[in-house]
Order: sequence, then C-alpha cells, then structure tokens
Amino acid sequence: MRIAPRSYVTLLLALSVGCRETSPVDQGAVPVATLNAQRNGAAEKRAGDGDELVQFSLLAALAAGDYAGGAPLVDVRQFGDFGVGTFDRLDGEMIVLDGEIFQVVASGEVVRRDDQGATPFATVTFFAADGTIEHVSAGSLTELDQTLDRRVPHDKRPFALKVTAEFEELTLRSAPPQKPPYRPLAEVIDQQRVWKRENVRGTLVGIRCPEWMGTLNVAGYHWHFLSDDRKVGGHVLDCRFNDGRAAYDECSSVLIRLPASASFGAIDMSGVSEADVNKIERQRGGK
Amino acid sequence: MRIAPRSYVTLLLALSVGCRETSPVDQGAVPVATLNAQRNGAAEKRAGDGDELVQFSLLAALAAGDYAGGAPLVDVRQFGDFGVGTFDRLDGEMIVLDGEIFQVVASGEVVRRDDQGATPFATVTFFAADGTIEHVSAGSLTELDQTLDRRVPHDKRPFALKVTAEFEELTLRSAPPQKPPYRPLAEVIDQQRVWKRENVRGTLVGIRCPEWMGTLNVAGYHWHFLSDDRKVGGHVLDCRFNDGRAAYDECSSVLIRLPASASFGAIDMSGVSEADVNKIERQRGGK
Repeated sequence: MRIAPRSYVTLLLALSVGCRETSPVDQGAVPVATLNAQRNGAAEKRAGDGDELVQFSLLAALAAGDYAGGAPLVDVRQFGDFGVGTFDRLDGEMIVLDGEIFQVVASGEVVRRDDQGATPFATVTFFAADGTIEHVSAGSLTELDQTLDRRVPHDKRPFALKVTAEFEELTLRSAPPQKPPYRPLAEVIDQQRVWKRENVRGTLVGIRCPEWMGTLNVAGYHWHFLSDDRKVGGHVLDCRFNDGRAAYDECSSVLIRLPASASFGAIDMSGVSEADVNKIERQRGGK
Repeated sequence: MRIAPRSYVTLLLALSVGCRETSPVDQGAVPVATLNAQRNGAAEKRAGDGDELVQFSLLAALAAGDYAGGAPLVDVRQFGDFGVGTFDRLDGEMIVLDGEIFQVVASGEVVRRDDQGATPFATVTFFAADGTIEHVSAGSLTELDQTLDRRVPHDKRPFALKVTAEFEELTLRSAPPQKPPYRPLAEVIDQQRVWKRENVRGTLVGIRCPEWMGTLNVAGYHWHFLSDDRKVGGHVLDCRFNDGRAAYDECSSVLIRLPASASFGAIDMSGVSEADVNKIERQRGGK
C-alpha cells in the first residue's frame, strides 16, 4: 500500500467500532492496529485487518522444490505468534507457539530459534480464540479432524486451531535438510524420519484452510506438535488423546507474501496437485 | 493480527531499509507504512507490507452468484486508490482511479460514487509505478496484453497496470443489476450491454494476476477504462491506440479479504472453471 488519506481512517473507525460481524456489509474484525493507534493518539494507515492468516510463499512452490532461503524469521514473528512451516533447505518442521519459533530437526531434537534464518514456507496468525471446545477426545488424527469439522463454523474461511491435551500416543515426523539441485517434495518425502511418543503433554498447532485455497496452502487440516517441556515436536501424522481442549481462531482474510527470489520466479508449479499435497502433508490416504 | 512486539519492528527496520530486492531472504518491498511511522517518530505495528494487491471476496464466489452486499466502499478506498470491481447486485463496472470510485452503469453513464454502498468483488492497490513503458501502441487488447507480457517482469507476482492514451476505438461493456435468486455470472453475461467509442482520451485500469491465482481472481489481464473527462468508461473488451504510456506496479503480496456473509458461507464455487472466468471477463476466446 501507499498511504490512505487520514479522513478514511477516521471514517473507518466511526463505522467499525463496536459493529464486528453485525453489519451485512461488514468484512469482519475491527482493525486492531488502527484502534491501537487511536489509543496511542496517532492516526495510522495500514493494510490488512486484525485477523489475517499470513502465509509466506505458496505450498505449490515448496512442493515443486523452492526450498532455499525465503522469508526472514523476523518477518514470521512480525506477522504471527502461532503457526506452522519449515526452514531454509527444508531443514525440519517449524512450530510457532506463543510468539516463539521452534525447529524440530530430523533427529527429533527441538531447537528454539532466534530471528536468524529464513523459511521457504510458513503459515501464521496472531492467535486469539473465537471459540473453545472442551472435553475433546480422538482415537486418531482423522477422528480429530472429523470432530472439529462438526464443531468449527464456516468452511470458506481459514482457522487456526490449538488443541492442548495429554497425548497417549503421537506419530511425528521431520525431514533432513536438502541439497541442490532440489527434487520435488513428493520425491524427497522418503527421506523423512518418523517416530512415536507416548504420554506427552503438549499442544497441537493446526491450520485449517478452505478448499478454495487448493495447492496455495494445505486445504483441510495441517497439524504440528510441541510438548509443554519443549522437548518433543514435529509434523503430526497421527495421535490419540482423551479430554483435550480445542480453541479456534477464525481468520477473516488471507495474506500471501510472495518471495522476490529468482528461484520463486523460475519455479514450475504446474505439476503440483492436491494429491501431491495430501501425500506430503498427510500420508493418511484420501482427504 | 494482534500486536507484534515493538522490538521486532525496530529490527525489521534495521534489516529492510535500503535492501529492497537485494537480500536473498528479502520478501520484496520495504514496508512503507513502517518507514512512514519512523519518519513520524512513532513505532507502528501492522500486517501487510507496503505493496499488496487487495481483493474483496473471490472471483469464483462472484462467478457462482454471490452478488449481494459485500465489502463497504469505504473499505475499498482504505485498501487502494487504483483498481477494478463491480457493485452490489452486479450493478455495473467499478473503476478506482486516483483514489476515487466510479460506477459505469449498464446505460454507459459514469457515476462518481461516495463511500456509501458495497462491492461483492473488487481488486485494488495503492498504485506506485515500479516502471514505465513509453510509446506503446496496440491494434487490439490482445496485442496490448502480448506487448506487456514481453515488457513487464515476473509472472508469479500480480501487477497493477495504468495505460494512458488517446484511444482510437474502445469496445466497452457493463451489466444491469441482478435480482435474486441470482444465476451464475456465466449465465447472466448475456444481459450485458456492449458499446463502442472512438477518439477518447483516458486511462486503462488493469490488473494482471499470475496463473497460480486460478479462479480466485482473473488470471492474466483484466482491464477497465475511464476517460479523462469521466464521461466514458466500462469493462474493456477491445481497444486500439497509438503512442500510449504504460506504468506498472509490481505487488509483493496478495491480501484476500473474505466476506463474513451467510451467502458467501453457503455459495458453491466448485463448478467455476477458468474457462468460465475467461468467458465472463474476456470474451476473446483462448487465454
């Protein structure tokens, strides 16, 4: 954006304060930063409302092999405190939780990351629960997805989902860093490491994208895990738990930040299908 | 978003000032509003960088018949000063130029709109030229697209395009407002009005979306027109001109604002194809 005239900001404030989701033409959330600026006594001009799902690059570009470099981790934390992703060269699984970035490398070790480094693909939001579901149990990850499908509203908007529980069993995976020339993700997935853990207390960090997002992100659910002691984590292939608690944050918009890199400019995404994404992210068969 | 810690904003400034497009991990534009805030001596927290293409709803939702209500026009002007769209109930073609919103109704009349009203689909940005092309001529709109394809860089990012010229001939169209129950756009397109104008000085307001956007927007070029005297306008089906000037603005991200409406939640977009979009927006055959 460039700069919106100050008068529109003032008018927007007049229109939006206190009318969230009540007007037939309301697009959703009150612009938090705008309100915050008013509280600070400064007019503010900004794009984006208060509730974006923010993704860095496209899953289709990652799936096609655009693994190098990407968005600085400092950007990831600027745009969200909760989410999932990977790292430069596909070096492990990213969990963003409570504003901190964790990396689960292929050995299963969990590394707390500072702002150095980059991500070729990540999806984050600032998590603020719009609703909670108590006493959630699931015999499998697929069962969890089905339970949430029944309880979480609106299938055209993305959701961030936070499930806290004592997990009886978790099947987790991560992947080792790749070397150029990079092969497509569906081909390197055979290098992934998979392990199980039992009786671990922690958080499922999930994003549910609507079907219309196709291969831009993972349509449906995408789950990563981090234990309360920050020692166990990874991309979740399966899990089992009783009496957990789920919180969900409905996102009113999607911000897609596109790499400026030559590799992104050159990548051929035309061969990436939703079946590839399902194979890469779920390995559960079907959708 | 909620609020990013102030320290990240400071660090982002340190990282991004003066390094646009030069770092391998740079996502693109320097965050203008952040810089602006620094100039104003105030720390600022915001989502989105300085250069988003902002769209309200999805073209696939419009094509499937979600014509009613939508985003307030005041929002459109908050998110851009340049772009294209339509109005509540599909009542004509929208041109956003120099921060003003114009409506070309089916009679061809051009109406200057204030902030009252709503749009079920629009795409805008704050236009700031990244490059210009002088002495552009085109015997047809397809020829213009081909010329720009050769001159405008990067086919994975969206562009806003502004072409000013004396137009020898323009073929324009608009559509009358629809009544519920709404039929799909590809079916109501036979109600459009088409007219020609000769020797009109004005501006082509264009958006070029990358192929990966599929039916979320119009992949390829989408052109509307407004004359300098604000008396002639519409969706452009064809044109011919000599010695025009094209300016382009590369967008580093895409912000998709999703309606909160029940009609958007209920719309079935699964039957909308890129062929439908081509039929609706181009009527030029092929892609």
